[in-house]
Amino acid sequence: MKENKVALIVGAGDAIGGAIAKAFALKGFSVCLARRSEESVNAFTKSLTDEGLKAYGYAVDARKEEQVENLFDTIEREVGLLEVVVFNVGANVPMSVFDTSSRKFSKIWEMACFSGFLVGREAARRMVSRNRGTILFTGATASIRGGAIFGAFASAKHALRGFAQSLARELGPKNIHVAHVIIDAAVDTQWISENHPNYEQLKKTDGLVNPADLAEQYVMLHEQPRNAWTFELDIRPWVERW
Amino acid sequence: MKENKVALIVGAGDAIGGAIAKAFALKGFSVCLARRSEESVNAFTKSLTDEGLKAYGYAVDARKEEQVENLFDTIEREVGLLEVVVFNVGANVPMSVFDTSSRKFSKIWEMACFSGFLVGREAARRMVSRNRGTILFTGATASIRGGAIFGAFASAKHALRGFAQSLARELGPKNIHVAHVIIDAAVDTQWISENHPNYEQLKKTDGLVNPADLAEQYVMLHEQPRNAWTFELDIRPWVERW
Amino acid sequence: MKENKVALIVGAGDAIGGAIAKAFALKGFSVCLARRSEESVNAFTKSLTDEGLKAYGYAVDARKEEQVENLFDTIEREVGLLEVVVFNVGANVPMSVFDTSSRKFSKIWEMACFSGFLVGREAARRMVSRNRGTILFTGATASIRGGAIFGAFASAKHALRGFAQSLARELGPKNIHVAHVIIDAAVDTQWISENHPNYEQLKKTDGLVNPADLAEQYVMLHEQPRNAWTFELDIRPWVERW
Amino acid sequence: MKENKVALIVGAGDAIGGAIAKAFALKGFSVCLARRSEESVNAFTKSLTDEGLKAYGYAVDARKEEQVENLFDTIEREVGLLEVVVFNVGANVPMSVFDTSSRKFSKIWEMACFSGFLVGREAARRMVSRNRGTILFTGATASIRGGAIFGAFASAKHALRGFAQSLARELGPKNIHVAHVIIDAAVDTQWISENHPNYEQLKKTDGLVNPADLAEQYVMLHEQPRNAWTFELDIRPWVERW
Repeated sequence: MKENKVALIVGAGDAIGGAIAKAFALKGFSVCLARRSEESVNAFTKSLTDEGLKAYGYAVDARKEEQVENLFDTIEREVGLLEVVVFNVGANVPMSVFDTSSRKFSKIWEMACFSGFLVGREAARRMVSRNRGTILFTGATASIRGGAIFGAFASAKHALRGFAQSLARELGPKNIHVAHVIIDAAVDTQWISENHPNYEQLKKTDGLVNPADLAEQYVMLHEQPRNAWTFELDIRPWVERW
Repeated sequence: MKENKVALIVGAGDAIGGAIAKAFALKGFSVCLARRSEESVNAFTKSLTDEGLKAYGYAVDARKEEQVENLFDTIEREVGLLEVVVFNVGANVPMSVFDTSSRKFSKIWEMACFSGFLVGREAARRMVSRNRGTILFTGATASIRGGAIFGAFASAKHALRGFAQSLARELGPKNIHVAHVIIDAAVDTQWISENHPNYEQLKKTDGLVNPADLAEQYVMLHEQPRNAWTFELDIRPWVERW
Repeated sequence: MKENKVALIVGAGDAIGGAIAKAFALKGFSVCLARRSEESVNAFTKSLTDEGLKAYGYAVDARKEEQVENLFDTIEREVGLLEVVVFNVGANVPMSVFDTSSRKFSKIWEMACFSGFLVGREAARRMVSRNRGTILFTGATASIRGGAIFGAFASAKHALRGFAQSLARELGPKNIHVAHVIIDAAVDTQWISENHPNYEQLKKTDGLVNPADLAEQYVMLHEQPRNAWTFELDIRPWVERW
Repeated sequence: MKENKVALIVGAGDAIGGAIAKAFALKGFSVCLARRSEESVNAFTKSLTDEGLKAYGYAVDARKEEQVENLFDTIEREVGLLEVVVFNVGANVPMSVFDTSSRKFSKIWEMACFSGFLVGREAARRMVSRNRGTILFTGATASIRGGAIFGAFASAKHALRGFAQSLARELGPKNIHVAHVIIDAAVDTQWISENHPNYEQLKKTDGLVNPADLAEQYVMLHEQPRNAWTFELDIRPWVERW
């Protein structure tokens, strides 16, 4: 069992993380899905195993150091050595600075950045001893642009990007590939389908990022040979204004 | 007393913050200096009042919401309405990701970003009702570049910049000027004088940023008329490689 | 013959352009190689046809508008409608500003930017009437950083990137995918093999970008579905300092 | 006469260049104004001398190497040694790629970039022998963003910025300060007054950059002590969306 290729997706179960998990599973990986809600992660994991894919679900609060350490230990003991770790947690919340309580500001950072640090560090610790591995982070428009009334989110996404870039520079020469995907558009998720006024029209005309197609980019980044690694790429639909 | 022009510098007492305070004091401002250490802030405040400048010292932990709120309330009640608020807290700490405990990562963010959010928000809340004011943030090379073994610091400085940019976009149309100064070099501080191998040579040849000259840039930003505001500028000595 | 998938690589024959041509040929494209030197382009084209690939060579000075227009007309008449056009001309020449004659400055721009404009525009003109196509540009470190003694080259590569970005924003909504690949490292070319002091060691340890692996990224960009297009990605070997 | 402080503004006579010239003249500089149209430059020069300022007008096509060299020679022989050189030529022309003839593309580059290279190089050649001087370039939004239908202009402004950045890195250690001002908004010029639908309203509410206020930033950059030089700053009115 330990000779499996194993991928961990933290923030899996929603459209994007779930699609990334499935994409790696279809490439033969044993995929480990981690998410806060046990019910959600188990439901999605079952949908993968029902298709004959190797998938394992874990209910984890990625903001808790112990839970993250346990997650990595458990997976490496029970499923196999991690080759790919994807951090895909985030929540785009518009909020005027006047409405941003210190609690909200901290929570958004804990979720979008601090948990990414914990996941990145635990991945690095294990991969560095084996001199191999891939660590991928999901970014957003707010990773590189601080828009009005997006202060808390932009701050947290900038923070994650700064960490990812440092990590890439520190771990590259140790043969660990770190990359950051900037999703500069709306993705076709349940939330968008319920909230976007032009959802049907956008979807029909490929105006929303398709999670499965997006997930291919994560697999592609992992498969890049080490003489030609990418740190960062942007993703948006053809019709997107940017 | 309430008709004073008042400036608050959070992170004052060290070379940079102290110089900023003095520069505004020399322009006729009543300057309020805030710093964690009561002893340090009082000593520096006294050095300004000894020169006949109007200066007030406050021992404050800027990571504590209540203390920051109290600081603003106290100043506006006792000194006057704030026209300029400068956030100048930071600590450049090289640290491999493998040595970065979650406590250290959080502490660096709290100091370099979260306290900047608290200060920026409290400034915004008071200035917005008067439709005027200037909020200035001190950035660093790490604000725009995540160097190897600077993960925690780069993450926190990226986070501060993302917040500052959002704040600028939200508050600009409310006549509040938000700007971010990227110091892309070593500044002539006590720490540098004790730790930099070429300190004497660098200092003699203007190879270190002089705090008083740097401080002039903060005053300059405040004095920009609102038809020509700058959000960001970089600062480095002529000999700096970048 | 007009139902072929056709790709044109301008700046083909050297390691990178040649590898891009071969990568598309291996995907079933009829590849058209354009280069100034007839001898070089014919030799490389023959090496592809000898492998059973569909390849056509053209001796073209891409800085000459008429020659570029003729190239596109000839290909579309004789080979088929262009689906992919790659602009891969460039020459990294370190040069102090004091040694930069106006002639050199102009020539570098003509080669690295003006010919890219001509190629991009002619591609756009033909693709827009069919509402489909991919236009790819090769960038370099100098596309985003103006290093000392690289003024002429950095200026030209910045210029190409600015044009490519505008083109991407204008043509995206017309279903034409424009992308820009930033090669932030030395590529394994003949020039490098003859001039780089550590060539053998670098090559052995994957420290140089392999043209064939790099070429895969161009194919990947072309194959992205239109709901998930990338404008820009960076490429460097694992050991590269950046 | 040779002991004058002398400043040259290339692209002077319009609102911005004229205001920069006047700002330096008010600081005691002998200002040399260069522009293509003899009539315009003489009229503006006279308006300065009428105010008792030291101003000299030159009709020069800055795209012509000989004319630029002659300009510098003439000024240094007849007025004095140049301490400040400002390049302020540009023309923001929206233009679809489909309407961009190769002639237009070249002309825009020649005006916005090539002439900037000539001016920057001639300034560098003279200043380097004296180990002092300031070279300032005017940038625009298009210097850092390639918007749709701004391909030619964005390309040229990116090119100028890439050159300026290289020049700053090469000349900084020679005690020559190179900086780049990004004007990210409409400036109150005659063209804007005649073409902007909301001109009166914008002007009344400080919604247009005032040339005189903008010019102060150029003087400020020149006056920065060499331990605290800025390469780049952005300028926009408080109400500008960015």
